[in-house]
Amino acid sequence: MATIRLNNVYVEDSFVIAGKKEKEGPLSKYFDETFDDNYLGENSFEKAEIAMFERAIDGVLKKTGLLPCDIDVAVGGDLSNQIVSSNYVMRKYNVPFIGAYGACSTSALNVILGSMLLESGMKKRVLLFTGSHYNSAERQFRNPCEYGGQKKDCATTTVTGAGALILTSNKKRIKVTSVTIGKVVDYNQNNINDMGTAMAPSAFDTFKKHLTQLNRDPSYYDLILTGDLSSVGKELFIEMCKDENIILNNNYQDTGLMIYDVKMQDVFSGGSGCGCATLTVGGYIMKKLKSGELKRVLVIATGALLSPLIVYQHESIPSISHAYSLEVVE
Amino acid sequence: MATIRLNNVYVEDSFVIAGKKEKEGPLSKYFDETFDDNYLGENSFEKAEIAMFERAIDGVLKKTGLLPCDIDVAVGGDLSNQIVSSNYVMRKYNVPFIGAYGACSTSALNVILGSMLLESGMKKRVLLFTGSHYNSAERQFRNPCEYGGQKKDCATTTVTGAGALILTSNKKRIKVTSVTIGKVVDYNQNNINDMGTAMAPSAFDTFKKHLTQLNRDPSYYDLILTGDLSSVGKELFIEMCKDENIILNNNYQDTGLMIYDVKMQDVFSGGSGCGCATLTVGGYIMKKLKSGELKRVLVIATGALLSPLIVYQHESIPSISHAYSLEVVE
Repeated sequence: MATIRLNNVYVEDSFVIAGKKEKEGPLSKYFDETFDDNYLGENSFEKAEIAMFERAIDGVLKKTGLLPCDIDVAVGGDLSNQIVSSNYVMRKYNVPFIGAYGACSTSALNVILGSMLLESGMKKRVLLFTGSHYNSAERQFRNPCEYGGQKKDCATTTVTGAGALILTSNKKRIKVTSVTIGKVVDYNQNNINDMGTAMAPSAFDTFKKHLTQLNRDPSYYDLILTGDLSSVGKELFIEMCKDENIILNNNYQDTGLMIYDVKMQDVFSGGSGCGCATLTVGGYIMKKLKSGELKRVLVIATGALLSPLIVYQHESIPSISHAYSLEVVE
Repeated sequence: MATIRLNNVYVEDSFVIAGKKEKEGPLSKYFDETFDDNYLGENSFEKAEIAMFERAIDGVLKKTGLLPCDIDVAVGGDLSNQIVSSNYVMRKYNVPFIGAYGACSTSALNVILGSMLLESGMKKRVLLFTGSHYNSAERQFRNPCEYGGQKKDCATTTVTGAGALILTSNKKRIKVTSVTIGKVVDYNQNNINDMGTAMAPSAFDTFKKHLTQLNRDPSYYDLILTGDLSSVGKELFIEMCKDENIILNNNYQDTGLMIYDVKMQDVFSGGSGCGCATLTVGGYIMKKLKSGELKRVLVIATGALLSPLIVYQHESIPSISHAYSLEVVE
């Protein structure tokens, strides 16, 4: 069964750092730190991404008053080839490390892996981190921004930002109550400019399994979030739910449409990237759970398993979506 | 603590498939399947790699008489960007999937993640798989083979081969008794032709932690295996052990020196890649454990976190090594 109920996994705290465009968006005030220079003082976008990860990790350690030696295991991943940002930032910390790859679903994959470590009683505290950088992602997956290529309306904008999250088996107010491990779903989509259509079917597959396996109705949640489907993928997701009589009321949103003002900010169909769900959940959602405005949230982080080399070989773009639920417990 | 003792993780069975050069090597008779055409009937090396993964997975399912629906979760990873071989092969199977990246240490990272799922009692049976392909790795990390570049003696030869392993919480004769999660170690090595020197320090770090944390002497094991240090890295590893008075007798070997006849086969300093430890352990070691010739084996799979893009930016090549112990229990 893809879904696992958890009894011993709690949120210690989170820290998110966001770039300029994200700072100009509607969630700005929920971010712990922002920056204007996409290079972050480094001489390449890749090194800037590593620096951003470092600030997120140091940020959550400082916020929680913890030291690296208080962390049992770190789990991280990102979009760069060989998850280079995650591997390289871990040079600084003397902590056992697990590298994960789930494309933009990595934030939820991290939660799944961290939860397994805690739930088994093997570990007491795990550090999770991920993020993405617009410029490094563009030049790896499409073209360097300097190339000035035109984009289609269905394209999404990779979020520049990173987040770190500490989970613990010590009782806290916010609990991770379940996880659903996604499977690879191939919708036979091969347009590298439309990740929303590629991802919506796997988001739906994971969502449906989550509800069925926990015998839950969508109304159980105050808010259901998909990762980065954008306006295109969100519509397809809603349609798929309708087709199977899964009723979404006003409790559904996509983080790709929350992080930017899509009408005003010139981001095409919305935000995407590992940083998208990470900033929205680690910044906005955590604060709403802390304040009690939200009590039960389901996060379905969505990953397009896009690989330029294999797409050039006329392959489709499959997708995977992983989910976890956060609940306020008193 | 990086090391975890396990009580509920057993080996159901393994299946390995190897390419031509590996078939011509000394471990040939231990492989379940071999092939001569590096394309495996496909029109690209990347697609051949995916096909190889499929044969490994189907092979272990057939060997154990299991169906995909008998598998609770699959865990896999590989060297290709976006772990494309692992993600794409999973399109075929209706099984929840966790994607991992640990470069050539992936086989051990898979065992760690699978063990966590079983040890927690969350899952009963997990499928692990990984592998590598000489031609796809060469063109991604260095140059296409067709380029005909010269190699240095310290270079290693990426193994073409894949393996699948099923772990279960049902009692079996071969038990995974412990895992040690590695950390990222940077030896400030930046020669992309010498992975052995980059990896030996992390292998040593993990090995030392494993022994210390379990209060064990190397003589506890019939055989201690490092992943793919090659002749260059093996010497450095032995030297590091000597420096700290860790005595290795005749019970230490490197899988990169076992899989090929290094003197005769024109493989430079030995084998490497995710397939290297995978074929050696999944083929040779499993059969020796089954026959009782070996009773206690420690595998330290070694991963060079090499990324061409960041090395071109004058960065060093850090490394990570993960370990697990296999023991025959009656």
